[in-house]
Amino acid sequence: MSDFNASDHTHRRYNPLVDEWIVVSPQRAKRPWLGQVEKAAADATPRHDPKNPLCPRVTRPNGQVNPDYKNTFVFDNDFPALLPDGPEPPENDDPLFQSGSAHGKCRVICFHPWSDLTLPLMNVTDIRCVIDTWVKESVDLGKKFRWVQIFENRGAVMGCSNPHPHCQIWACSFFPDEPSKKDKNQRTFKEKYGKTMLVDYLEKELVKKERIILESKHWVWLVPYWATWPFETMLLPRRHILRFEDQTDEEKNDLSQILKELLTVYDNLFEVSFPYCMGWQGAPTGSSLTEDCSHWQLHGVFYPPLLRSATVKKFMVGFEMLASAQRDMTAEQAAERLRNLPRVHYKNKEG
Amino acid sequence: MSDFNASDHTHRRYNPLVDEWIVVSPQRAKRPWLGQVEKAAADATPRHDPKNPLCPRVTRPNGQVNPDYKNTFVFDNDFPALLPDGPEPPENDDPLFQSGSAHGKCRVICFHPWSDLTLPLMNVTDIRCVIDTWVKESVDLGKKFRWVQIFENRGAVMGCSNPHPHCQIWACSFFPDEPSKKDKNQRTFKEKYGKTMLVDYLEKELVKKERIILESKHWVWLVPYWATWPFETMLLPRRHILRFEDQTDEEKNDLSQILKELLTVYDNLFEVSFPYCMGWQGAPTGSSLTEDCSHWQLHGVFYPPLLRSATVKKFMVGFEMLASAQRDMTAEQAAERLRNLPRVHYKNKEG
Ligand SMILES: O=P(O)(O)O[C@H]1O[C@H](CO)[C@@H](O)[C@H](O)[C@H]1O
Ligand SMILES: O=P(O)(O)O[C@H]1O[C@H](CO)[C@@H](O)[C@H](O)[C@H]1O
Repeated sequence: MSDFNASDHTHRRYNPLVDEWIVVSPQRAKRPWLGQVEKAAADATPRHDPKNPLCPRVTRPNGQVNPDYKNTFVFDNDFPALLPDGPEPPENDDPLFQSGSAHGKCRVICFHPWSDLTLPLMNVTDIRCVIDTWVKESVDLGKKFRWVQIFENRGAVMGCSNPHPHCQIWACSFFPDEPSKKDKNQRTFKEKYGKTMLVDYLEKELVKKERIILESKHWVWLVPYWATWPFETMLLPRRHILRFEDQTDEEKNDLSQILKELLTVYDNLFEVSFPYCMGWQGAPTGSSLTEDCSHWQLHGVFYPPLLRSATVKKFMVGFEMLASAQRDMTAEQAAERLRNLPRVHYKNKEG
Repeated sequence: MSDFNASDHTHRRYNPLVDEWIVVSPQRAKRPWLGQVEKAAADATPRHDPKNPLCPRVTRPNGQVNPDYKNTFVFDNDFPALLPDGPEPPENDDPLFQSGSAHGKCRVICFHPWSDLTLPLMNVTDIRCVIDTWVKESVDLGKKFRWVQIFENRGAVMGCSNPHPHCQIWACSFFPDEPSKKDKNQRTFKEKYGKTMLVDYLEKELVKKERIILESKHWVWLVPYWATWPFETMLLPRRHILRFEDQTDEEKNDLSQILKELLTVYDNLFEVSFPYCMGWQGAPTGSSLTEDCSHWQLHGVFYPPLLRSATVKKFMVGFEMLASAQRDMTAEQAAERLRNLPRVHYKNKEG
């Protein structure tokens, strides 16, 4: 039997953060139609749309008029999935019909007054404003809520219904499943090996190098060994940082820079405004603020849906929904492709 | 504080099969743009396409010529994600870089020679042929493989790349995560309560009635209490059946009938060929064939992506990917809508 080669042979990889396996089938990327790269239509979002409820000076559905904001603008979602108050579901002792309380707050953060300016096209100073807003909101909401989820759904293909560059924060009274799993697995790792999982992980990746894409003074951008989405990546601080708001000033400046750079690389992959789900996860807040959370390491995650081109995405359906996640190329192959892309945005190339 | 009402107040529900919670935000369905129901373009799939590798008599990419098949036709996927043989990944004692063996077989099942005939439009005798093919493949593949996943991705929105009605079977040498969770949770339930979870569950649902959509002599179609996708449903046998192949002849006939009926109801919801991921899950096979699997109950699952109309789907993105699944209406509301739909296919209404 021939030797195993990760870029040729099907295997599974283990994600220690969530305790799940992913099937890696690199031979599938060799399908004949892989090479077809279509160009998506150029986006034509106007800089200002007086009908768009996220634009400056526009009246929102609830009658409020947006201020003439100059950098970020934050407000409560007009149609929130979570509300701060409300009656509690009754207790039920049947294990098959369990319900629980769900309160929270949903906030929207516009990144900039211009609708046609995505994060990678913004200047570093304006990105720093976004980071400062994330810090402020995290601190405020974290006082009361157990989990504060910052996330950006970018692109219509990611369910983003408004083209104006913005992100959301959903703060919850409960500890959601996905971060709960990460909490449990990081805790067990710490107890077993005496190290913080992702701190240990980064140290090893910096030696191995094959999955690193970009490095800055304080941050490292890489494709995790266990990546699920084709171009899934993780952004890790070099230092052990529990929560987003624990960054130093220098780290935040550096983050503004590397965020611009990495999102530029993403856009350059298929020369399109690259769709993704971006989010930040660190130690839980609320009642956890006074507990030992040293098993946590802050990490930014990026889950982009595209696989082959600006218009062909990876579908996590059938087998993936029912059995196991599956990918068509290795993490190393994805890292290599991203690593070799220009760091200047394709829209700024000419002139 | 007012009384709790599941159709008005945000809450969470527990899925005991996979040990996960879902946030239910019924107030979100009250967004002003909810009512907009667009009609999708009529599908114009030709009955026979000499270029389609799934059609009878067509030459596939590997040079093989499809037979002039009359009901189902099964063959090995030309670009499989899993292969029966291949070298094993090396062992690694670092818990952060774990890989494992992944072998298997990927089969494609064409339902019928006609490309324009989906399951709900087929006659019951032809659906019975599909069921018999599922049985045969399950038995054959189950002898060797630990897990045999039958699934249909229907519709382009579900990543289905070929309009010819077909499903797939991926058989795996390993026990994938999703059914592993179901195995573990059903086992624990059995140990704790002395009952098979889904058998007990169905008994209770038949009393409560509010989530039942359709009943036949041997099968019950319902929206599970913990449904995640807007119109997610489950098809349960009335009897305790471990695996798909353990059905009696009468149960299989009845299944052909209710399958046609329920898929008709789905198509009638938005008067469109309703996209979904359908799959069957029962006790594991291979080495588990000789083990006690009485904690398992066979169940069919349907995960449809549509939410508001034939063209507006629910996006499981941002918060859902990073924190917790979330839905915009209750399971009971979905069940009621489906229950009230006609049982005659909208395409067969006139004439
Ligand atoms: O095999 P197909 O139909 O080309 O592919 C489809 O189903 C597979 C199994 O769920 C997925 O891995 C693919 O992402 C999806 O597009
Ligand atoms: O709030 P939005 O942008 O309208 O909605 C989007 O993000 C939400 C949070 O991830 C999801 O629940 C929605 O399905 C998605 O379309």
